[in-house]
Amino acid sequence: MSDRRADTPSLASRHLLGIEGLQRSEVEAILALARQYKQGLKDGIQRTPLAGKFVALLFFEDSTRTRSSFEIAAKSLGAKVLNWSPTGSSLSKGETLLDTVKNIDATLRNMDSGGPSALVIRHRSSGAPTLVSRQVHCSVINAGDGIHEHPSQALLDAFTLQERLGSLNGKRVMILGDILHSRVARSNVHCLRLLGAKVIVSGPPTLMPAGIESLGCEWAPDFREVLGSLDALMTLRVQRERQTDSFVPSMREYAARWGIGRAVSDQLKPGAVILHPGPVNREVELASEVVDGDRSVILEQVSNGLPVRMAILEMCA
Amino acid sequence: MSDRRADTPSLASRHLLGIEGLQRSEVEAILALARQYKQGLKDGIQRTPLAGKFVALLFFEDSTRTRSSFEIAAKSLGAKVLNWSPTGSSLSKGETLLDTVKNIDATLRNMDSGGPSALVIRHRSSGAPTLVSRQVHCSVINAGDGIHEHPSQALLDAFTLQERLGSLNGKRVMILGDILHSRVARSNVHCLRLLGAKVIVSGPPTLMPAGIESLGCEWAPDFREVLGSLDALMTLRVQRERQTDSFVPSMREYAARWGIGRAVSDQLKPGAVILHPGPVNREVELASEVVDGDRSVILEQVSNGLPVRMAILEMCA
Amino acid sequence: MSDRRADTPSLASRHLLGIEGLQRSEVEAILALARQYKQGLKDGIQRTPLAGKFVALLFFEDSTRTRSSFEIAAKSLGAKVLNWSPTGSSLSKGETLLDTVKNIDATLRNMDSGGPSALVIRHRSSGAPTLVSRQVHCSVINAGDGIHEHPSQALLDAFTLQERLGSLNGKRVMILGDILHSRVARSNVHCLRLLGAKVIVSGPPTLMPAGIESLGCEWAPDFREVLGSLDALMTLRVQRERQTDSFVPSMREYAARWGIGRAVSDQLKPGAVILHPGPVNREVELASEVVDGDRSVILEQVSNGLPVRMAILEMCA
Repeated sequence: MSDRRADTPSLASRHLLGIEGLQRSEVEAILALARQYKQGLKDGIQRTPLAGKFVALLFFEDSTRTRSSFEIAAKSLGAKVLNWSPTGSSLSKGETLLDTVKNIDATLRNMDSGGPSALVIRHRSSGAPTLVSRQVHCSVINAGDGIHEHPSQALLDAFTLQERLGSLNGKRVMILGDILHSRVARSNVHCLRLLGAKVIVSGPPTLMPAGIESLGCEWAPDFREVLGSLDALMTLRVQRERQTDSFVPSMREYAARWGIGRAVSDQLKPGAVILHPGPVNREVELASEVVDGDRSVILEQVSNGLPVRMAILEMCA
Repeated sequence: MSDRRADTPSLASRHLLGIEGLQRSEVEAILALARQYKQGLKDGIQRTPLAGKFVALLFFEDSTRTRSSFEIAAKSLGAKVLNWSPTGSSLSKGETLLDTVKNIDATLRNMDSGGPSALVIRHRSSGAPTLVSRQVHCSVINAGDGIHEHPSQALLDAFTLQERLGSLNGKRVMILGDILHSRVARSNVHCLRLLGAKVIVSGPPTLMPAGIESLGCEWAPDFREVLGSLDALMTLRVQRERQTDSFVPSMREYAARWGIGRAVSDQLKPGAVILHPGPVNREVELASEVVDGDRSVILEQVSNGLPVRMAILEMCA
Repeated sequence: MSDRRADTPSLASRHLLGIEGLQRSEVEAILALARQYKQGLKDGIQRTPLAGKFVALLFFEDSTRTRSSFEIAAKSLGAKVLNWSPTGSSLSKGETLLDTVKNIDATLRNMDSGGPSALVIRHRSSGAPTLVSRQVHCSVINAGDGIHEHPSQALLDAFTLQERLGSLNGKRVMILGDILHSRVARSNVHCLRLLGAKVIVSGPPTLMPAGIESLGCEWAPDFREVLGSLDALMTLRVQRERQTDSFVPSMREYAARWGIGRAVSDQLKPGAVILHPGPVNREVELASEVVDGDRSVILEQVSNGLPVRMAILEMCA
């Protein structure tokens, strides 16, 4: 069936620029639709509410899982995909982000009759998708902007946690690592708190944002002391590509002080899970045996990215 | 509907290698079909005359708008797209243009039963698409070759001008800038003259081809003197990527002498429009306020690229 | 029709990792299905047994003909294609092959209800596809791994030879060149011998693997002496990209001693054909007039790659 459902829930905005500013009901609507898609995929049911529409993927930064997840989601919904990348584009001629995007938007505007097409944008500059959203006719979906937000990651993390833990109300989730530079952390703080979870942050003091408590988080200077009380431990990537090296003495020292090996993992309570947004630096944030161990839901996060992004695309486009 | 229209107009050749050599009736047929597609897109009507066919995009030079426009056009017509690019190809092993293209042609030849597939080619060498067209079974569409021609750009420019000015018969259109290295200029001179317009060229004397008058153009050494008589001003990009720097003292000097700011733009007569093939070097060829101003039809050009390229693809494939 | 044929033959494994280990009946089943597809394409019959399924192309090494052939094959079968490439991926962040592939596999696992999706992998490391196949739910198709195997190439070579020579039983096929580093040679030795052909190898002694006779091949130190007895001469590429330079004094000396010019070609018996997996180093392995001459079936090999890869994809996915 290619028709849109009459009862598709909608967002207040046609864009998804971040979790901050969303209502709890909007987040829950996305997660509920994602659950329907996951079940539908399992049952072999095909719905193509985006048949005849275009989704343009504009990744100004490298990506494997987010890009391929959005591409597979869009095609599964029946959309046609324009997979733009900086290599081979007019960026080499000095064209700006805004001019690049406005050109693709101008082309896609011809198809506006059934509602806007969607632009999925990843960019190293915080706020780039928001800036773009004010200048285009298409819906804009933020696939990660600088150190600002990565909303689809937070939504698939919440989806995965709900599958494992049930309601997140009152659950204790620690985010561990480079909070300062992490768009994943920022989106997750907003999303987890909206859903009623208690968020504890920990990591190298140089990588804690000033005033983190004002976001409603608890700071644990020594994460080992609270391990036994956690329902979930979300580890973050040491992002060498964001020049955070200078904040951390060395990978080896990070691993020794903040890395999760088997012994640390065993201190978690039964049923507690370990997450990571990927790509993992094996033996840095997590020992390989923890990545591939029983508590790890890392590949479940990746797998759940598909139904979550299908829900996002349907609700935005 | 996936059938071809019985009355689809055709070109004398199955290729589109340049505007030079086309008949006026062929250009008018493309523009008329493009108008039908533009209206159809607005009305949400989907026609897929290329269902089951392949369109291969072979861009040996960087591009954002031409490549994405052809890709969206092909997919909108129901075609499957092979998006080849030099990166990741066997060009790195020393394979030649002709051998690369003949290999893709050999694969696509299996699908010849319903008519040829199409190859859309951009290459830095003038004449490359023509050379290729003599060796392959597919239809060849020139998406820009060196300093020779860029026919789809000239056709979308003519389409945009007709929408704004009506018939081009007797209209005065100035092409301003680096005429010598511009395939856009060359295709536009042919196309505008076919449609009855009067073409005036201007720009740095070092960038005027010798004997430009023999193409039927008028040369204006000082473009400011004739501004008030123009119906349209088509500015060209200073193509740093074509090593034209040595022809122009500096970007700043180009901007001062040949750039169009607000004051110059105001000397145009009411209704006169400003075009640019993109990407614009803002504050060089055009001041930013002119790019985004009332006379600018730059994003209309981009938008109109879609129905024009749909018409080209249908008539060639 | 989008249904699978009830009588689609199957492989013992759902993967195609190499020719070694396949049964003769499996190779013959692929070739028979490929013949059906070739005829179907000629007759304009569309079958889409992979409708709704995904095929991911993961080319860690450069390719034009193998990648585009698999992409066109997958789309012709109705599959959706994910065209992943190292450029723009998380490989730049240090992600390993296995983690990259397991992420894509995790996303595609959502679609497992109708059978697995397929991963088509090219990698510089011999054995990489086999390693991957043990860790994923998708079917894995080897599109060339290091100096190990390139099974789809050997199958299209056999297909082309059968079209030209009929049954390969007792036919004499020489493989000439860098046998040591050639995955094409290795797959062809296995495939040709399965089909009953006699394989003779020749080339620079430094590029002959030790104990080549143990594979059932005959070694001809001077290929000119046996030219008149051959039914087919399969020339191999001098792979500068595999650092084989040090094994060969120079391209000029290779051409003089092992290259096939017109005079050598004329010593073949009537009906004997010349193959090359491409891309050809013109005037090195083959003189240009031989590449484009009557005995050359090089573009037929490329063209036949399409139905052969359609058969492979249908039997694996």
